Amino acid sequence: MSTIKSLTVLGSTGSIGRSTLDVVRANPEKFTVTALAAGRNIGLLKEQIEEFNPSYVSTLTTEDALALESEFKGRVKAGAGADGAVTAASIDGVDMVVSAITGAAGLMPTMAAIEAGKDIALANKESMVVAGSIIMDAASAAGVSILPVDSEHSALFQSLSGHRVADVRRVILTASGGPFFNAKDIDLDYVTPEQALNHPRWSMGKKVTIDSATLINKGLEVIEARWLFGFPAEKISVSIHPQSIVHSMVEYIDGSIISQMGTADMRGPIAYALGYPERLADSVAPLGLDGLSLEFFAPDTKRFPCLTLAYSALRVGGTGPAVLNAADEVAVEEFLGGNIRFTDIYRVIDSVLSGAIVREAATIEDVLDADNEARGKAREVIRTLRK
Amino acid sequence: MSTIKSLTVLGSTGSIGRSTLDVVRANPEKFTVTALAAGRNIGLLKEQIEEFNPSYVSTLTTEDALALESEFKGRVKAGAGADGAVTAASIDGVDMVVSAITGAAGLMPTMAAIEAGKDIALANKESMVVAGSIIMDAASAAGVSILPVDSEHSALFQSLSGHRVADVRRVILTASGGPFFNAKDIDLDYVTPEQALNHPRWSMGKKVTIDSATLINKGLEVIEARWLFGFPAEKISVSIHPQSIVHSMVEYIDGSIISQMGTADMRGPIAYALGYPERLADSVAPLGLDGLSLEFFAPDTKRFPCLTLAYSALRVGGTGPAVLNAADEVAVEEFLGGNIRFTDIYRVIDSVLSGAIVREAATIEDVLDADNEARGKAREVIRTLRK
Repeated sequence: MSTIKSLTVLGSTGSIGRSTLDVVRANPEKFTVTALAAGRNIGLLKEQIEEFNPSYVSTLTTEDALALESEFKGRVKAGAGADGAVTAASIDGVDMVVSAITGAAGLMPTMAAIEAGKDIALANKESMVVAGSIIMDAASAAGVSILPVDSEHSALFQSLSGHRVADVRRVILTASGGPFFNAKDIDLDYVTPEQALNHPRWSMGKKVTIDSATLINKGLEVIEARWLFGFPAEKISVSIHPQSIVHSMVEYIDGSIISQMGTADMRGPIAYALGYPERLADSVAPLGLDGLSLEFFAPDTKRFPCLTLAYSALRVGGTGPAVLNAADEVAVEEFLGGNIRFTDIYRVIDSVLSGAIVREAATIEDVLDADNEARGKAREVIRTLRK
Repeated sequence: MSTIKSLTVLGSTGSIGRSTLDVVRANPEKFTVTALAAGRNIGLLKEQIEEFNPSYVSTLTTEDALALESEFKGRVKAGAGADGAVTAASIDGVDMVVSAITGAAGLMPTMAAIEAGKDIALANKESMVVAGSIIMDAASAAGVSILPVDSEHSALFQSLSGHRVADVRRVILTASGGPFFNAKDIDLDYVTPEQALNHPRWSMGKKVTIDSATLINKGLEVIEARWLFGFPAEKISVSIHPQSIVHSMVEYIDGSIISQMGTADMRGPIAYALGYPERLADSVAPLGLDGLSLEFFAPDTKRFPCLTLAYSALRVGGTGPAVLNAADEVAVEEFLGGNIRFTDIYRVIDSVLSGAIVREAATIEDVLDADNEARGKAREVIRTLRK
């Protein structure tokens, strides 16, 4: 690759966004940053503007955008909110958009980027969960590539590469098991947000860390894998692998398993997506094999029933996954706010999902309506729990 | 693949040969057997003739060949010795030759098969060790594919497929460690052939089982990998993996490792080579992941110095690997015969290799001369040991 790839980073001040900019910093001859979209962390965004010189930035509020435009007069244009993120995602001259805004909020800018013909490095798994078929159809129509940034999906992508899809028996997503996998004596009814945020292997954002603790994160990844790779639910399984070294595996019909492993560091899958089809040297520290022990266990779906809910939502289809995702987002926020118990996250999602009228997910409006409705329902359920 | 692949199996009554015929038996719509070459196990060869109906067979002795021709009159033609094996390897109508005669004796028929334009499923690693560059040049000139049957090289082949060779940092051959890896209190000076033949993971022929116990087998595989995949010695490393589940790995420049794993069963890599580019369903039993623990250790080259000798032979180049291999074949035979100690195997190879005049390996004659000379030297060394 002799040409420089121009990037938009959506969610630049979040965990994935910062790691993305680490990769850019390490490979200045390969990448340039044209646009950044952030939220409220304006201090960090200013540093990123100084270092990477984007021509456009987007913030959550209009006040922040105006203040940045005046501070970086003549250097940076700024927008705000959903419109700002969409502008950053579809701006001229960008080759690839790193979609790393957490939650359903990442959906519209991801769609805008696809429609503008940008390749996508997709960290925002919620887009795929709520609108997988719509996104894949749009990407196919626009002729753009979607490269997974989740370590698991990057591992599947790498383990499928060079092999016949017809020969796949199943894909196996690995899961660390989260902070409570080995703490079998802990009563999950009484764990605090601090305990749940203490992930043993990965340093990630809060939402995804809680989702790892409930295992629904793995369920969302099952749904994401369904759309990214086109395998039905029964060909996607989950294995608990506490060391987080094997990032996922593909089992073929002959009994062979191809896997991708490496040091647990998000810069690995980010660099793979950014550099594809080339690999970028030293994206993560080399894996020391000597003395390594890699273990695998079946998931405990009795203790972590959210995983089963995700499979149910995938089997129901239509707006089912959007409902699952919306209920989870609300429930996690309320758990982090200290308003509901850890185990209530399951109760909220289960209640919303089983009461939902699932519709066809033909348009973005369909899924956004379902999302909205599910959030309302989730808040209602939470009110009954708090009484 | 709608057409049937026609096979010659060289070494049909050995361990790999029998497993090859298991694969053929399980996939009668995909393969037919045109020729078989065996040694002295005429009883089993007769059964194989009955079941697979080859039109040509080869045996070690002319008496056996004549007896078979008269017993299977009109059904089977038979030849004997090196000529018979070469005829079986180059017979008309055969698409692929499974080269599974143990030792340097496999070299001439493998070359004959290549020159006759047959694809090769290569289990005879000694051919590659003694004449790797000659074989690869001949294969390239004849436009034939060489598909590895060793589980390690099959794993490397599968882990390289779909990825850029320029991105490879190193390949990592896994080794079970053999029967003495965990028996650190055993004095290797006093182990018996029976102890050394008791391999913990793989059921294989005697020669390769002893070679596994000394670790020289892994050294021969390092040399084989050098020629099959074109990587220099410093890009080929070895990791002890006692479970024999991960069959080998490729580390890429970004820090990613792609590996192939599966149940330890030679029918896996055999079926992969025979079916390539398709996989054959259920070649090995599915790997049960739940409860699995995979460990990796650095090789103990102090206790198992034969591995280091193989790297030396590879670095010396030319006829060095042929000398290494010949000295090992003689030493293993004498160890199995109770004439030298287990640790003498190293002493014999080291002494022959360090005293050898290494020449260019430009022709098959060059390597056969070196092989011959090294065998003579090995017997001399053994005579001094036995005094």
